[in-house]
Amino acid sequence: MKLNFDYVKVTDDEILSYQDKVSKIVENLDNRKKDINDFVGWLDIVNNYDKIEYDRIKKTAIKINNQAEVLLVIGIGGSYLGAKAITDAIKTKNKLEIIYVGNNISSDYISDVIDYIKDKDFAINVISKSGTTTEPAIAFRIFKDILYKKYKDEASNRIYVTTDIKKGALRKLATKEGYESFVIPNNIGGRYSVLTAVGLLPIMCAGVNIDKLLEGAKLAYLEYSNKNILENDCYKYAVIRNILYEKGKVIEVLANYEPKLHYLLEWTKQLLGESQGKDNKGIFPSILDFTTDLHSMGQYIQEGLRNMFETVIFVNNSQNNIFVKEEENDDDNLNYLAGMSLNYINKKAMEGTIKAHVEGGVDNILITLDKLNEIELGKLIFFFEYACAISCMLLDVDPFNQPGVEAYKKNMFELLGKPGY
Amino acid sequence: MKLNFDYVKVTDDEILSYQDKVSKIVENLDNRKKDINDFVGWLDIVNNYDKIEYDRIKKTAIKINNQAEVLLVIGIGGSYLGAKAITDAIKTKNKLEIIYVGNNISSDYISDVIDYIKDKDFAINVISKSGTTTEPAIAFRIFKDILYKKYKDEASNRIYVTTDIKKGALRKLATKEGYESFVIPNNIGGRYSVLTAVGLLPIMCAGVNIDKLLEGAKLAYLEYSNKNILENDCYKYAVIRNILYEKGKVIEVLANYEPKLHYLLEWTKQLLGESQGKDNKGIFPSILDFTTDLHSMGQYIQEGLRNMFETVIFVNNSQNNIFVKEEENDDDNLNYLAGMSLNYINKKAMEGTIKAHVEGGVDNILITLDKLNEIELGKLIFFFEYACAISCMLLDVDPFNQPGVEAYKKNMFELLGKPGY
Repeated sequence: MKLNFDYVKVTDDEILSYQDKVSKIVENLDNRKKDINDFVGWLDIVNNYDKIEYDRIKKTAIKINNQAEVLLVIGIGGSYLGAKAITDAIKTKNKLEIIYVGNNISSDYISDVIDYIKDKDFAINVISKSGTTTEPAIAFRIFKDILYKKYKDEASNRIYVTTDIKKGALRKLATKEGYESFVIPNNIGGRYSVLTAVGLLPIMCAGVNIDKLLEGAKLAYLEYSNKNILENDCYKYAVIRNILYEKGKVIEVLANYEPKLHYLLEWTKQLLGESQGKDNKGIFPSILDFTTDLHSMGQYIQEGLRNMFETVIFVNNSQNNIFVKEEENDDDNLNYLAGMSLNYINKKAMEGTIKAHVEGGVDNILITLDKLNEIELGKLIFFFEYACAISCMLLDVDPFNQPGVEAYKKNMFELLGKPGY
Repeated sequence: MKLNFDYVKVTDDEILSYQDKVSKIVENLDNRKKDINDFVGWLDIVNNYDKIEYDRIKKTAIKINNQAEVLLVIGIGGSYLGAKAITDAIKTKNKLEIIYVGNNISSDYISDVIDYIKDKDFAINVISKSGTTTEPAIAFRIFKDILYKKYKDEASNRIYVTTDIKKGALRKLATKEGYESFVIPNNIGGRYSVLTAVGLLPIMCAGVNIDKLLEGAKLAYLEYSNKNILENDCYKYAVIRNILYEKGKVIEVLANYEPKLHYLLEWTKQLLGESQGKDNKGIFPSILDFTTDLHSMGQYIQEGLRNMFETVIFVNNSQNNIFVKEEENDDDNLNYLAGMSLNYINKKAMEGTIKAHVEGGVDNILITLDKLNEIELGKLIFFFEYACAISCMLLDVDPFNQPGVEAYKKNMFELLGKPGY
């Protein structure tokens, strides 16, 4: 994983002016990371995760692979985006199919899933801190019912719960019914939880190597411990975001050149947007999948309002490689590409696009992954989490709360007649 | 289809002040719509499409359904988003599977499709005005090769071309090889072309009723011909967008509450973004899928920068309906929802969300569809096309060109060594 800041019009002096602020923020985070009542646990998890639970995650993943054709992962927001990001990005030969439900209230979506699993063996991993979040709770009620009708006494052996260590509806139920259960640590918020059981169980179920994922995160942890702001790409990214924001760049386009990275950007969007969008401040994150969206939003980026910058993720080596063949007639004028790989052409499209957008007045930050593998993705996860926390604190907003999400829930509960509302 | 402007803080007087401007724009569009050298053909197509080609689309769709298990639709931008929007939104019992390719340069994506169709009968609908747009041209070269190797002399009977009536590489090839072909009219640009053969052939192949789709568009055409701006929801939407933009609302969040509407918003995003984002002006469109994204971007919308408004699409009646069951123990505290349908709960979530966001300072425009059917979607397509054109002209930008998309292509061709660059 490499960052390239050559396409950003920000000087080293501008960046250096943040050195003191960043040092204080880093020190603050470092002091808080072992506090079990704080929300900085994600910063320490790469050194300090529960080894016994970790082994149990691995054993459980093997068990689920043996007992089911489909694993329904029930969760919303931080309780599914991290796993979905990784299981989409890394395709393995595992046969277990993972379907994410409980992330909407769509009858049609849920009906399709009910229909799809009808004749398949399935298991459930339900992920919720409280156990009463509306979307996953509804989905769990529906699919638990189907599971019990299908497997009867054996059903409880197919439910895996990831929830609070002590409190909440799901913990109570897991204890009562004897479901195998895992812990969402108190000092790690939902959108920072992908490297806890929240993400690791479904990720391991998909056949992804979680040892290497954590190893990648740890490598990034070490790499980004350099206190010198100009030598630390994570600090630099955080600072540049804020400098651009101060200059009126209020939209961050998160772009990729590989369709299966879409959910990695959805995870990033939640992380950045939910962490920073408060107190009437914050950069608005928006995802574009290139080159696809160059044919929809390319025009706007090139010539629309000049209030955005782009953070681009590119993968140097794809899993497969296809080459353009020579054709005798060259009817499509494509012979000039003959012998080139699609990955090479995609890379030139990326380079040409960055050049055009920068010339159009849109700064670009380029993140290059060598391959889509566990090490690189582990690094990327840690990079974004750490940069996000620093970037928020530079803007003087709390990276770990989300006070604004209660407003619509309160209204909804009132409209639905929930007791107490 | 109904619009509700009650959640927008814009007065009738503000809207009325645009009456003259809008009348002039409408007159201008009306005068241009029959000009075969202009780009306003989409405004007239609901009255004036080629009946002979239309019948041929229907016959060809039946033929493709009989000859193939998979139809590969090769196209990018306006050459696939409209069809994808409709074929995602309306699920039929048709067995033909439609896979969209040629909208990226990903080796991994294309490899997966090659692998998937290996043992299936397939056909190709390639859609490109010039026939030389990089992404679809590459995909066509790859899949044509596979098709010819598999079907030999029969291959040309499985390729369907939608392209310019006279010019370009694809027209030339279609004539030479005798491929069945359809026309992209000269006076309709890509992002306005869903109701031409570009969209209609794949949509009909998916078993969607294109008569009704066009009927819906025609109904909207009639409904939105009322010259009184306060009685014309299409004019009103166009005007309100511009009033909000003048007030600093530079982001339009396009939101839905039904996952299968995602691509309808992708189509809308291209239409609005590519039409309006020029001359350093324009509203930036960004898609959110609710309630999913309330758990990622809900915080930002509630309390972030106050520079956005929302356009929400809600469907009153879903295809399926699931009800929450009563549970004896109520472990999840969900019994207060017992007996309610998911669609009803989803609606209350929508209502609660709009109330919360409006209170947070974000104006909302609500578009309600009665059902996800062809009539309603036809109306919606015409509504957005017409509103988009008016909205752009109010901002004094050309709704029908896209001069900015050439910049990255030029760079890319240069980097790839294309002759002439």
